[in-house]
Amino acid sequence: MATINQNYLKLPGSYLFSTIAKRIREFEAGHPDADIIRLGIGDVTRPIAPSIIEALHKAVDEMGTEEGFHGYAPDLGYAFLREVIAREDFAKRGCDIGADEIFVSDGAKCDCGNIQEIFGLDNKVAVCDPVYPVYVDSNVMAGRTGTYDEAAENFRNVIYMPCRKENGFMPELPKEKPDLIYLCFPNNPTGAVMKKADLQKWVDYARANDAVILYDAAYEAYIAEDDVPHSIFECEGARSCAIEFRSFSKTAGFTGLRLGFTVIPKDLTVDGTSLWSLWARRHGTKYNGAPYIVQRAGEAAYTEAGRAEIRAQIAYYMENAKIIREGLSDAGYEASGGVNAPYIWLRTPDGMSSWEFFDHLLSEANVVGTPGVGFGPGGEGYFRLTAFGSRENTERAMDRIRRVG
Amino acid sequence: MATINQNYLKLPGSYLFSTIAKRIREFEAGHPDADIIRLGIGDVTRPIAPSIIEALHKAVDEMGTEEGFHGYAPDLGYAFLREVIAREDFAKRGCDIGADEIFVSDGAKCDCGNIQEIFGLDNKVAVCDPVYPVYVDSNVMAGRTGTYDEAAENFRNVIYMPCRKENGFMPELPKEKPDLIYLCFPNNPTGAVMKKADLQKWVDYARANDAVILYDAAYEAYIAEDDVPHSIFECEGARSCAIEFRSFSKTAGFTGLRLGFTVIPKDLTVDGTSLWSLWARRHGTKYNGAPYIVQRAGEAAYTEAGRAEIRAQIAYYMENAKIIREGLSDAGYEASGGVNAPYIWLRTPDGMSSWEFFDHLLSEANVVGTPGVGFGPGGEGYFRLTAFGSRENTERAMDRIRRVG
Repeated sequence: MATINQNYLKLPGSYLFSTIAKRIREFEAGHPDADIIRLGIGDVTRPIAPSIIEALHKAVDEMGTEEGFHGYAPDLGYAFLREVIAREDFAKRGCDIGADEIFVSDGAKCDCGNIQEIFGLDNKVAVCDPVYPVYVDSNVMAGRTGTYDEAAENFRNVIYMPCRKENGFMPELPKEKPDLIYLCFPNNPTGAVMKKADLQKWVDYARANDAVILYDAAYEAYIAEDDVPHSIFECEGARSCAIEFRSFSKTAGFTGLRLGFTVIPKDLTVDGTSLWSLWARRHGTKYNGAPYIVQRAGEAAYTEAGRAEIRAQIAYYMENAKIIREGLSDAGYEASGGVNAPYIWLRTPDGMSSWEFFDHLLSEANVVGTPGVGFGPGGEGYFRLTAFGSRENTERAMDRIRRVG
Repeated sequence: MATINQNYLKLPGSYLFSTIAKRIREFEAGHPDADIIRLGIGDVTRPIAPSIIEALHKAVDEMGTEEGFHGYAPDLGYAFLREVIAREDFAKRGCDIGADEIFVSDGAKCDCGNIQEIFGLDNKVAVCDPVYPVYVDSNVMAGRTGTYDEAAENFRNVIYMPCRKENGFMPELPKEKPDLIYLCFPNNPTGAVMKKADLQKWVDYARANDAVILYDAAYEAYIAEDDVPHSIFECEGARSCAIEFRSFSKTAGFTGLRLGFTVIPKDLTVDGTSLWSLWARRHGTKYNGAPYIVQRAGEAAYTEAGRAEIRAQIAYYMENAKIIREGLSDAGYEASGGVNAPYIWLRTPDGMSSWEFFDHLLSEANVVGTPGVGFGPGGEGYFRLTAFGSRENTERAMDRIRRVG
């Protein structure tokens, strides 16, 4: 008799963004004329940059010819893309990462979700709280956690590292020793960043404790300030303790094109086994590569023209972030983030819960954001707004928020 | 201290196609002028059809405009694609499959590899022998099998169902009860097909034993004969015991574009839990959808023009298959497949092992194929040739094989 993976049943029924969608539908049913502005889900809205569109057309034309057709991609991705990544994202920042240490994929979500597979089920996982749900849920599904604790609103046998105003939204080195440490900076959802010296402490800690850091750098393109590392491999010793995830989604607007990559140094070993070789085996067995045309699109994002266009898109979103920050400040809110990240993290007013504030903002201003508690109990009393809307919607949303206070 | 997933270490070191590539390199080093023809790896060679190229260009243009830009795709895939699949691939064949039972993905390899995750680790797996390695390897990596048995050249605690000439390359209902049964028809690597009445027996067997059939129909577009089911859902009762995998790779030449789908009926339950809901949860947590432009390309494969173009491609490959079959017959080989499948499965002559024959063919005819034993011990003494080469190369390869005998 077949059986199911019982670990799946540990997951609470409803996914954050489904619950949000349901509440919006209910509100709309009662207020059919409401003009709702969505600053909730972190999806981009700007069109793909012209240089990238051009590269896509060119690659599509190739695929229609006998000599230009490309079948299965190389397991790790095309060399033309891995080499430009190694040079532009790593060598130019002084990071010693080879093109053959880069695994091209269809996005950081898949990689972040799948990476846990190469580790034993006995590994203890540490995550920030609040946190991007994929890190925790993928470990729940694998059976690396305990059951869901209804009272604590989190999972047993996971080390949660609170990130709240009191500690500057920075996780503290945990007392209990973790084996796998998920870090995401610039952070989703808080928008906080870690300075290089602080990240170095985590690298040193991981090395001292034989832990592996799973570093999600999906938002590195939004870093505006100096002394904020774009890659964990800027830190000394990271090659022997860290894996890094990168994405084209927020960098170049690829949420609908799907491209990302994972960096695993060849000298990173656990139990005397190379994690590079395990991930290569997973890639070879369960994955068939990102589309050729999308890898060509990714390459175009590194051309001079492509970079300029992408920088302009990021500047557009970051101007939105500024408008949101200033609008919130005018309206008397306490908010952080939005300087090196496309997310603004605000304190709900008057001791309102995250969901109370969600309902308040939806009904009074017809603006949708994301309740902080949706990212874990550490997010209770907070609320996330994203800078990915259009300028017009962002401005209109802030006018309304100023008005309702 | 972090630990690795020890199950990965059960996998024998070298992957079949890497070993082949290494042997070719070695041969080339000693014979730099050899003109090697590759009929080994099952990758297509014909360019993408004009209607699909046109749809890709159109979708790329959309992505470059504010109003046409598409970000994250819906979790299950775009409705425009799921609906046309439900109508053309299922309703038209009398299968009761709804658009919301179709999960669009980036290919059948990923889906075949990932599907085992939603089942318990105590499930007993049955596979054909020879077999597409992904079914077994993904279960090894999850810990659902025993260790590798060097003498038997297979994994302990897996039910292997031999498919050899003696049983018409058809698996027999196993004596030991399996929980998960992987079936692939038209078969890779043997090219064999199962008649509808025979597949119905498997459906009945699965239902009687509370087993789930994981049915890989990646090659259904190659079926030429009547009475061969294109979908397991043509069989009565399959909705309560089967999951089906489909791919655009061999149907429309998408090996480099990446598109496939998995069908899970909503009434398929195990342990009282809907497998649809578990797979939806996996999709939502660890996957972010196939690219919009590729989903539009998939849609174009179902237009009248697209279908005609694709049919012509398949006819091209099947003419290759005929040339290979006839060439082998002329040369005195015993071969099967190649009628409803792009693979031709031949018996090695004079009691040669699969690898001996590989070396023989490489050195004497400079033709590369795939040793049958690479698909499992049941493939020893067999050899796979594929119809995916160009016409010219296929003809040249067969001329050489005729010559060397």
